[in-house]
Amino acid sequence: MARSSASNIRLESSAAETYAAVRAAQLAGESVGLVPTMGALHEGHLSLVDASLAECDRTVVSVFVNPTQFGPGEDLASYPLVLEQDLRLLEERGCWLVFAPQAGEMYKPGHGTYVDVGSVATLYEGACRPTHFRGVATVVLKLLQIIPADRAYFGRKDYQQTLVIRKMVSDLNLPVEVRVSPIVREADGLAMSSRNAYLSESERQQGCLLWQSLKLAEKMYSEGETEVAAITKAMKERLASTEVEYIAFAAEGTMDEVTSIEGPTVVALAARVGKTRLIDNHTIG
Amino acid sequence: MARSSASNIRLESSAAETYAAVRAAQLAGESVGLVPTMGALHEGHLSLVDASLAECDRTVVSVFVNPTQFGPGEDLASYPLVLEQDLRLLEERGCWLVFAPQAGEMYKPGHGTYVDVGSVATLYEGACRPTHFRGVATVVLKLLQIIPADRAYFGRKDYQQTLVIRKMVSDLNLPVEVRVSPIVREADGLAMSSRNAYLSESERQQGCLLWQSLKLAEKMYSEGETEVAAITKAMKERLASTEVEYIAFAAEGTMDEVTSIEGPTVVALAARVGKTRLIDNHTIG
Repeated sequence: MARSSASNIRLESSAAETYAAVRAAQLAGESVGLVPTMGALHEGHLSLVDASLAECDRTVVSVFVNPTQFGPGEDLASYPLVLEQDLRLLEERGCWLVFAPQAGEMYKPGHGTYVDVGSVATLYEGACRPTHFRGVATVVLKLLQIIPADRAYFGRKDYQQTLVIRKMVSDLNLPVEVRVSPIVREADGLAMSSRNAYLSESERQQGCLLWQSLKLAEKMYSEGETEVAAITKAMKERLASTEVEYIAFAAEGTMDEVTSIEGPTVVALAARVGKTRLIDNHTIG
Repeated sequence: MARSSASNIRLESSAAETYAAVRAAQLAGESVGLVPTMGALHEGHLSLVDASLAECDRTVVSVFVNPTQFGPGEDLASYPLVLEQDLRLLEERGCWLVFAPQAGEMYKPGHGTYVDVGSVATLYEGACRPTHFRGVATVVLKLLQIIPADRAYFGRKDYQQTLVIRKMVSDLNLPVEVRVSPIVREADGLAMSSRNAYLSESERQQGCLLWQSLKLAEKMYSEGETEVAAITKAMKERLASTEVEYIAFAAEGTMDEVTSIEGPTVVALAARVGKTRLIDNHTIG
């Protein structure tokens, strides 16, 4: 165990010691919330921490840039690492323990076991990033064994990820309640993301087009347009200065594609702005 | 919760109630052992129960014929089901709780999540039964979430399975100690198996050839033969009246093939006798 300088927050890099600490708290009758993160924390992450603090006796945040959820050529090597800053933010908030392992603590030599959740992980993000959700599911399962939390908190920005997690938790009987918090946005509408730090000023303007295109979809629907093809066309025009990877319309709570909006429908999209890949989503209908 | 007639053993079919019972015991400071079985219990299973009783405060036995570990054309439909008899045996032994779910309790409609442990599962049993270990790993992971035991007990007869389980437990950080007990044999040397019930009297004689061939390997080694090819040839001759699926020589504790015996070496084999598929193994060297 270590403590950050002049800090009351507990910093652990050992899986075994983290497990022991969490179990001891639970055996003492305390509930534990887990917020899994890759660090570089922003207000989106902190809203999850706040949700955990509000309903759990102790809040654990994991900070781990998980290599198995990055594909070849993705931004694993450049992903921002600002642990001291993260610790300060988490201590101010009232977090109990930060689990920040090295990669070798999470993946021993010869690691070969992966969790695959099936069809919910195959389209959209799963199609663009073929091994991404396998890596996400595997590391979240591992984290939930090391930190057998009563509740785990995820952000709605990663909509498909929340479905992957819920599916895994249900299919594998993981004894944890999954909580999903709304997207937190910058004043200009850009969904908060650690990757926003990559954006130049002009790219930042382009990044705002994702949210603008989602608001456009909402406006068209409110004005009577229900055909996905027509709304998608208008969104793509709005997003013309970006490189759109997909625009998905799915029945809320699923990844099941719809061709017209006949009930609550999540519109999810991914687009590249320069070298940075951004995602966002919004529910209409 | 239900109790078997005139019984002190607790019988559960609900995953949620089983989890609650196990957690309550652990919160009261008691350790829990899990013996996962497919029922039709024999002295091999009961040796695992005894191992759990000896070192855990409470012993749970799961009885579930797991469909996902059977391939097309295998014996899922005919696998013996004798729950009342199993309950009597377990009650006599001093087991606390039997978890015997229906298939629909373990696999909800749309189940899609599986655990794959990689290379240790691909050869030998994994090659003969391509989805077998995926099903085994998945159901054991599920059982260990429903019954978050301190220790789990497996039989050495399923040697490769024990490696699959150990690999999964290690790679996924499952907080359980894996215990492996020796093979229990009939007086004539046949390894105990629920599938032995399928054998006619003449098939039973053939079944004994598996153990005889393993003893032959041991004898040849003790007389100076270290070449796997020579020992395999002699074993196949001894097994000529059966249909041999594989004979594997691997460094003890692995599935890494060896061509000569230079240290502790597990000899594992599978053979069909009539319609019944039997496996056995023995360590020499």
